[in-house]
Amino acid sequence: MNGGFSTLTPLLAPRSIAIIGASSDPTRIGGRPIAFMKDQGFKGTLYPVNPSRAEIQGLKAYPSVADLPEVPDLAIVAVPANLALATVEALGAKGVKGAILFTAGFAEVDEAGQAEQDKLVAIARAHGMRLLGPNCLGVFDGRTGYYATFSSSFDSGWPIPGRISIASQSGAYGTHVFAQARNRRIGASLCVMTGNEADITLGEVIGWLAENPETDVIAVYAEGIRESDNFLASLAAARAAKKPIVMMKVGRSALGGEAAKSHTASIAGDDAITDAVLREFGVIRARTTEELLDIAHTATRKIYPVRNTLGVITLSGGAGVLISDVAEQIGLDMPAMPGAAQARLKEAISFCAPRNPVDCTAQVANDMSLLKTFTESLVVDGGYSSILAFLTQAGGSNRGIEMGEQLRAVSDAHPDRLFVLNVLADADRVAHFESIGWICHEDPTRAVMAIDAMGRYGTAFNAAPLAAPPIVPKVRLPATTPSEGEAKRLLGEAGIPSAPEQACATVEEAAAAAEAFGYPVVMKILSPDIVHKSEIGGVLLDVADADAVRNGFSLLLARAKAAAPNARIEGVLVARQLKGGVECILGIHRDPVFGPVAMFGLGGIFVEILKDVVFRRCPFGEDVAEEMIRSIKGAPLLLGARGRRPADVKALAAMLARLSVFADQAGDGLRSIDLNPVLAMPEGKGAFAVDAVIEI
Amino acid sequence: MNGGFSTLTPLLAPRSIAIIGASSDPTRIGGRPIAFMKDQGFKGTLYPVNPSRAEIQGLKAYPSVADLPEVPDLAIVAVPANLALATVEALGAKGVKGAILFTAGFAEVDEAGQAEQDKLVAIARAHGMRLLGPNCLGVFDGRTGYYATFSSSFDSGWPIPGRISIASQSGAYGTHVFAQARNRRIGASLCVMTGNEADITLGEVIGWLAENPETDVIAVYAEGIRESDNFLASLAAARAAKKPIVMMKVGRSALGGEAAKSHTASIAGDDAITDAVLREFGVIRARTTEELLDIAHTATRKIYPVRNTLGVITLSGGAGVLISDVAEQIGLDMPAMPGAAQARLKEAISFCAPRNPVDCTAQVANDMSLLKTFTESLVVDGGYSSILAFLTQAGGSNRGIEMGEQLRAVSDAHPDRLFVLNVLADADRVAHFESIGWICHEDPTRAVMAIDAMGRYGTAFNAAPLAAPPIVPKVRLPATTPSEGEAKRLLGEAGIPSAPEQACATVEEAAAAAEAFGYPVVMKILSPDIVHKSEIGGVLLDVADADAVRNGFSLLLARAKAAAPNARIEGVLVARQLKGGVECILGIHRDPVFGPVAMFGLGGIFVEILKDVVFRRCPFGEDVAEEMIRSIKGAPLLLGARGRRPADVKALAAMLARLSVFADQAGDGLRSIDLNPVLAMPEGKGAFAVDAVIEI
Repeated sequence: MNGGFSTLTPLLAPRSIAIIGASSDPTRIGGRPIAFMKDQGFKGTLYPVNPSRAEIQGLKAYPSVADLPEVPDLAIVAVPANLALATVEALGAKGVKGAILFTAGFAEVDEAGQAEQDKLVAIARAHGMRLLGPNCLGVFDGRTGYYATFSSSFDSGWPIPGRISIASQSGAYGTHVFAQARNRRIGASLCVMTGNEADITLGEVIGWLAENPETDVIAVYAEGIRESDNFLASLAAARAAKKPIVMMKVGRSALGGEAAKSHTASIAGDDAITDAVLREFGVIRARTTEELLDIAHTATRKIYPVRNTLGVITLSGGAGVLISDVAEQIGLDMPAMPGAAQARLKEAISFCAPRNPVDCTAQVANDMSLLKTFTESLVVDGGYSSILAFLTQAGGSNRGIEMGEQLRAVSDAHPDRLFVLNVLADADRVAHFESIGWICHEDPTRAVMAIDAMGRYGTAFNAAPLAAPPIVPKVRLPATTPSEGEAKRLLGEAGIPSAPEQACATVEEAAAAAEAFGYPVVMKILSPDIVHKSEIGGVLLDVADADAVRNGFSLLLARAKAAAPNARIEGVLVARQLKGGVECILGIHRDPVFGPVAMFGLGGIFVEILKDVVFRRCPFGEDVAEEMIRSIKGAPLLLGARGRRPADVKALAAMLARLSVFADQAGDGLRSIDLNPVLAMPEGKGAFAVDAVIEI
Repeated sequence: MNGGFSTLTPLLAPRSIAIIGASSDPTRIGGRPIAFMKDQGFKGTLYPVNPSRAEIQGLKAYPSVADLPEVPDLAIVAVPANLALATVEALGAKGVKGAILFTAGFAEVDEAGQAEQDKLVAIARAHGMRLLGPNCLGVFDGRTGYYATFSSSFDSGWPIPGRISIASQSGAYGTHVFAQARNRRIGASLCVMTGNEADITLGEVIGWLAENPETDVIAVYAEGIRESDNFLASLAAARAAKKPIVMMKVGRSALGGEAAKSHTASIAGDDAITDAVLREFGVIRARTTEELLDIAHTATRKIYPVRNTLGVITLSGGAGVLISDVAEQIGLDMPAMPGAAQARLKEAISFCAPRNPVDCTAQVANDMSLLKTFTESLVVDGGYSSILAFLTQAGGSNRGIEMGEQLRAVSDAHPDRLFVLNVLADADRVAHFESIGWICHEDPTRAVMAIDAMGRYGTAFNAAPLAAPPIVPKVRLPATTPSEGEAKRLLGEAGIPSAPEQACATVEEAAAAAEAFGYPVVMKILSPDIVHKSEIGGVLLDVADADAVRNGFSLLLARAKAAAPNARIEGVLVARQLKGGVECILGIHRDPVFGPVAMFGLGGIFVEILKDVVFRRCPFGEDVAEEMIRSIKGAPLLLGARGRRPADVKALAAMLARLSVFADQAGDGLRSIDLNPVLAMPEGKGAFAVDAVIEI
């Protein structure tokens, strides 16, 4: 049933399972999976393997893997660490294609453990076997009674059948998410926990779920993304299948020393880059477990409006203000009801507030059909894609069922809309409202956030195809970090323009170049050994005439000698000093997982103090580049706020897109690129890199 | 029992109550309070008043207010709007000191209703009677069985006894908060809903609660603050009593047209000013109802650490990362355990993570006493003021009680610490954990937010007294908006310095002034009729020599003539052009509720695009001014980030404090002040207003 990720099927939906290290004690790790599956009626075959018992929990047991009567789809490995290698070898020899390793004591412990883990993987690969774990809490699926796990979460209840699937790197947090879902009666049946990810990664699991017909919504808990190929492919597959992914991603570990050396990279951690990747694919990042479940649960209605608008109905004014505040803050549009419809509602209840939020007042207590009239008007006249009804305790009261009947009449008639209820009621009443088509939330703020998320999925699922990245001549990078002049020449070959400038070996050349450009000019020391010029006083601004050029030439050479006596000095770079542009920074940083990543920000304090920057995986086209530019907080500076002249955003976007392709083509040798500053000149006048550093 | 707000006692804790418009039907508005109080055993006396019945719900009824056998503490008024005036008059004549008006149809409807409401207030004031409402849902107190309300919230349960009190302007939202608290078994007994606030305001209710010995924590829902005197006094009283206030404040209504005209005011709405006032008094603003209750509930432990640090214990690694992320993000300190203690923990469990979060691993399942050992070590060795234990489902499992015993041993021994549990368990288990001293939250993010709030209360409750505002000579403002020169002179009298400058009536005076200051200079047109000079080209920068001054003088006069032919022209202002300062904006805006409010921000884009500004009620001292300056995001620009020379923050703070006193002393005639830009020169070199507008 699954395509690109079908090698996971024996692990996530097996028909026959051997339990290696099976125990007769249903509370022990090797006993729990058997007890769970027997209790929950797993339909497949179970083969306990234990050398010292003929029967385990009422099932025939086998002394060894070799003795199994058939090749099972899956083996659950619950043996001590010192037996794991031999067990995996035996499973491979038998032809088993999937194993889940509960066993701990590998890469999570020390380097010796890492070495053992590497051996496990090598054995499995040699036999074409896939491994989940080691050190993992396994998999369970409440719908099929499949419990390849030793979690103690089921003490307080089994999963609620449903179409949300959970993928988690952490077993403890994966089951925490599951348990919260179950306690809220949210249908999340399938839960996969990847542990050490020696072989199978979170990305593959997401990919399998994207192809899995029993899964509509994917809820993910991640601590760090270990590899990009499967991860990116799985996000793309889920988006193509219109399956929402909602993800908690924790951990803001600093980048390794390697990457931290780049100016660009030190601005943010890899978390910001993961964040950019998630946004790229329309994955919504939840900040809390509750938000994760709020969004996942709301998404099970499969209503993802392309243009999301919210119509609100309340029985009293108070909550409407709060809801409007939240909607405005997160950018969920709440347009007013049409005037004619407002007039009609006023006729029905003279004291009502008909604008949106629509307050139909306590009058509905006297004529319950007004609740239907008003809600219907929101759908038909207001045309909102999402309807939120704030009933709160009234929904839980004696008349709640009656109210539900009015609401059901509307939701039944309009299956294309998203209907959400704010209600304080007991679990049975909530279940009732959900059964008639209304997703329930206690808290209005959380309801609005979840509704907004549906629109963000709609936008992602229906986005126009992106423009192709520009075609950029492939540039051959030198083996070592080039000088500034050389860097600019290489970038120039790729169509990334710098300010007009000339490398001058002699003072006469410098004077002539300055005369040709016109004053003022900028002068910079030119040396492949001096990367950060301004730190040694190697940059002169506002050089105003020929005498100043001559003096400057000597001064720069003297400063370079003093600061770096052994540096190779190639001369001085003379450049036209551009006036009136907006200072920007364009950068490339190589992320250890996602490869080259482009950064854009405004120059100076915007990057350094306000961290107002945006990231994107390379390569990308000009449409994406322009979207990045427009997305930063300081964008009005470029777009012409408050009477400013707009900058040449098109030229800037072209430059950024070309830089992304340049970086993508450059290969692993490229460590980073810093174009700082780039001057975005007024509209039509282009954008130019004033300084350029390429680190190899 | 209550001091400054004791006139509310008859309304919030009455011993005898007349119900005007009493009904025999316990489902009607006039019947519900009687039914509730009978059911819940209210100990006071009830006097139903109804002209057509001798007995109501088993109680003797009275035909009129005049017929009552004694003067009751309180009257509940549940009569139609057309009878309200006469009823209040009769109550006043009888000598009743408090009335709660359920009756709707007043200021919330139209201007006629407002006029009727004004009459109600006039009658009440004439008799020394206090009014709650009209159009309000009243008051209830679950501990005393006092139910002066017709809310239908009790269909699904009565309040849980406890020491949180709720004050809400909205009846619907007040009872929503109550119902959420009750459903979570949080003890919030007393709930006051103020409705139209014709007489008693939210501020007074908060003040009464601050003095009320049965209240430890005050939870507030507000839509808009109507008056400042009681509100400010009540916030101060609560802070002095070390009673935390947590508040949801919704509604971001734009300021009225009057205030919106000021540049300063248009940057933010009154919401930002309310926000500043809440911060000033250590009130924590909750964004959601859940957060409101999380914080209120956690506060009932009355542990408010002055320096809050968090120690975390988990049974597995996963959640620790999430908790650390959240703590770092909101600035809650999680220092590492001391090295020696870490070594001891490693001896106890070799695989544990002893740093903080401390992961004591599943090993505790084998030896439960390790949970105590580890938690005790967090308290004793780590010295954390707050301890969070992440037990999640394990707390709800069969062994949860056993775990609780280990935890209780630690919390019993250290009553000065805050103990919080993350647990997924049924309500009875949660109640058990809470009874042994551990506040329970399901979600780790919410737990960390609530713990952080306790430290913020601790800081507010133990803050050093603020410095007195500086003594500033009282300045007599003119009757109309002064010219820039006059404005600067007035500010100068108050010790608020401007750049050295001179008003020059003739071109010769201008040339002489420029020579005296040194070049370059700034020249500006001088006219009381031209307020925004730069808009008409009335400002010249970088005027470099005497010739340029002469040309500039003519140019400015010509431009002024062209733009405003009838403006009175007093000449040209010549000022030294300050170089190397950081541009700031200092402003004053008169808030309709809170009076003069000072604003500080960095100049240009920081204010215009990034809205990076801070507000504070006037007047205040230099300590507060400096805190304001340091609180903005762009502060590093002033403080010397990345090798910049620090600006003269002391001088800037002195200027801001003096401006706040100037504004406070100026009286109601002052509409706004804009000092834009102010140049903060390098340390020791002062700060100077370059432009100044005082609007009268």
